[in-house]
Amino acid sequence: MTGMTTPIDPRDPAATGPHPARYPGASNAPTLDSWQQAPDNRWAFANLGELVPTATISRTRPTVPGAATVRLGALTSQLPTLEQQLEATYTDAFLVLRGHEVVAEYSKPGFALDQRHLIMSVSKSICGLTVGALVDDSRIDPARQVTDYVPELAGSVYDGPTVRHVLDMQVAIDYDEDYVNPAAEVQTHDRAAGWRRRREGDPIDTYAFLTTLRGSGEVGEFQYCSANTDVLAWIVERVTGARYHEIVSELVWSKLDAGRDAIITVDAAGFGFANGGVSCTARDLARVGRLVLDSGVAPGGRVVSEEWAHAILAGGDRDAMTYDGFTSAFPDGSYTAQWWCTGNDRGNVSGIGIHGQNLWLDPRTDSVIVKFSTWPEPDTPSWNALQSRLLLDVCEALDAV
Amino acid sequence: MTGMTTPIDPRDPAATGPHPARYPGASNAPTLDSWQQAPDNRWAFANLGELVPTATISRTRPTVPGAATVRLGALTSQLPTLEQQLEATYTDAFLVLRGHEVVAEYSKPGFALDQRHLIMSVSKSICGLTVGALVDDSRIDPARQVTDYVPELAGSVYDGPTVRHVLDMQVAIDYDEDYVNPAAEVQTHDRAAGWRRRREGDPIDTYAFLTTLRGSGEVGEFQYCSANTDVLAWIVERVTGARYHEIVSELVWSKLDAGRDAIITVDAAGFGFANGGVSCTARDLARVGRLVLDSGVAPGGRVVSEEWAHAILAGGDRDAMTYDGFTSAFPDGSYTAQWWCTGNDRGNVSGIGIHGQNLWLDPRTDSVIVKFSTWPEPDTPSWNALQSRLLLDVCEALDAV
Repeated sequence: MTGMTTPIDPRDPAATGPHPARYPGASNAPTLDSWQQAPDNRWAFANLGELVPTATISRTRPTVPGAATVRLGALTSQLPTLEQQLEATYTDAFLVLRGHEVVAEYSKPGFALDQRHLIMSVSKSICGLTVGALVDDSRIDPARQVTDYVPELAGSVYDGPTVRHVLDMQVAIDYDEDYVNPAAEVQTHDRAAGWRRRREGDPIDTYAFLTTLRGSGEVGEFQYCSANTDVLAWIVERVTGARYHEIVSELVWSKLDAGRDAIITVDAAGFGFANGGVSCTARDLARVGRLVLDSGVAPGGRVVSEEWAHAILAGGDRDAMTYDGFTSAFPDGSYTAQWWCTGNDRGNVSGIGIHGQNLWLDPRTDSVIVKFSTWPEPDTPSWNALQSRLLLDVCEALDAV
Repeated sequence: MTGMTTPIDPRDPAATGPHPARYPGASNAPTLDSWQQAPDNRWAFANLGELVPTATISRTRPTVPGAATVRLGALTSQLPTLEQQLEATYTDAFLVLRGHEVVAEYSKPGFALDQRHLIMSVSKSICGLTVGALVDDSRIDPARQVTDYVPELAGSVYDGPTVRHVLDMQVAIDYDEDYVNPAAEVQTHDRAAGWRRRREGDPIDTYAFLTTLRGSGEVGEFQYCSANTDVLAWIVERVTGARYHEIVSELVWSKLDAGRDAIITVDAAGFGFANGGVSCTARDLARVGRLVLDSGVAPGGRVVSEEWAHAILAGGDRDAMTYDGFTSAFPDGSYTAQWWCTGNDRGNVSGIGIHGQNLWLDPRTDSVIVKFSTWPEPDTPSWNALQSRLLLDVCEALDAV
């Protein structure tokens, strides 16, 4: 603890530093005004997408715009309306991996199966595994306070809670996660991260935004808050000295035998949007689910300890889970280490993102289900119910085939 | 011709339209304020990198930061100092493809050979091939005036010149291509394209910037101007109804048997920065050179006609080439269809980008040389001379091995 009490100026980019440099020896973060000049150009010419938005010039012929990919196999004998249900729930891609076999695959017209898709808050589950890997290495101690790792958060709501509280979303915080309310903190968060157009006076970047968060800081009761994940990513940077996305590559993505790189949106400081900014292919996301079912082991080696993986599948603290948006569907539900645990008799666990993103694990059939969607609304009881029903129906179909 | 005489307001995004939609049926361009909502989300969740900068979570383990990749093979018997020369000229990657065999490959420490690198104005040569493919299809007639395709350019310097004049950079234009002069048009161009921080009053996007260009419009003498290439890309969009980067994929990249997608920076309107915004791997860029040496044919089919490919290798109008920055090194030099033609006895032709990017063709040894660099200066006689000497030395070494 630092005893620091003066609030940080959220418009001062230096106030929350130091942060890992974009390239070794960089004195300052390359910016739109500096990247074309030496020495920043030595980094920027290989990483321009971090500063300027880019479009993809595909190496494969564009898919026929009018045609979906539909390979639903044996599932359709149990679920004859599966394709229609996927369409009705705005599915962009859908994949079922049973053991190591892809038993069903679907993509909407115009979306190719090898294309990346934004996974929204399923990104959190990847951050959770990254933290798990660092706990396994003894580089992070979940019992320590957040401010032991990030003293700049002294004076914020994160002054007191432990890493474990943040992992399990058990910090009482003044943060309105109402995605369609322009006054909600989640929208300020978006603007700081470059997801929405900036406004005068906005925090300069995500780090600065996190220092502005206030609340009682009471711990022990579940409160979903996207800022928690970015705090974890900041801790990841502090204990490794590397940038968040580099560590996700080193500890997770490079071990998956992934078909493609993932990408993550970055803010003005180059900080990856850990809570929601990852895009990847459905197949690669299924590989993330696979390693949890496989007790923490991926093709390229162990990612998290057996204990860490099993704890996700076992579920978290049910008493702490007072959020009726989840318990109404899953009475024994819980949340642990950035995963939603249904507590149902199948033991389903999921990474969940708004607008219908799911990385759904079904231990009973040793299967992983990925669903990428673009619901017209971010997060409503009716859409959630429809999606859960569909995922459970697929699991039951897997029992029978 | 339209007879339109009122100048276009470069801050009005509608003034230069219509432009190809980012997705079928989009009523307006998705923006930072709209992409999370339906229906834009159906496109944006698969293409977020077009709106928000992204970093790569690599699927491969990070390369050892301290180690370069050096596989220079038999070339070193002829050029013992090649590796040192590559280092001294700030080389990020270097590749020699002889026939279909990679005979030399190099990358600096921290840069992987399968990584993309900004190719700057070598992007122009790819645009030239794209136009060539559309000429071959009779969708573009080089003898027609630019304003036949883009009437919004009436009243600008492009009101009069033909597509051929623009392809060959033979339009007299008030455009200062001094990369380090903040008052130069090339920097306004950068700002409109999102490459530099915007200033009050800047044109809203690249299309709008192009309408602001003035000059005598006299034709027949070479004047290098990056805006010309973006005019060609605008013509590509008008004759195809598709976005520039989609057409590059369809007509060029998808035929290369490319190892990776290329990417291109996009402006606020989603318009690809055709004149300098492409990033790709050295191996894939070599495949572009290969198809020119192979009379227009790539592994996936013909890209441009035999005539178009041969015309590049034959060189352009030497009388028009009055730029002593090129003729001092290559007295018989010329520029045609977005390629630099040395006119030397080897018949070397090159795509060239600032800070040391080259896609260099050596017909005599049926070889393609790619060099990605990050010179500390964009474009000076001494760096150009050093680079040309190195490329010619490599060609002569190829004669001997």
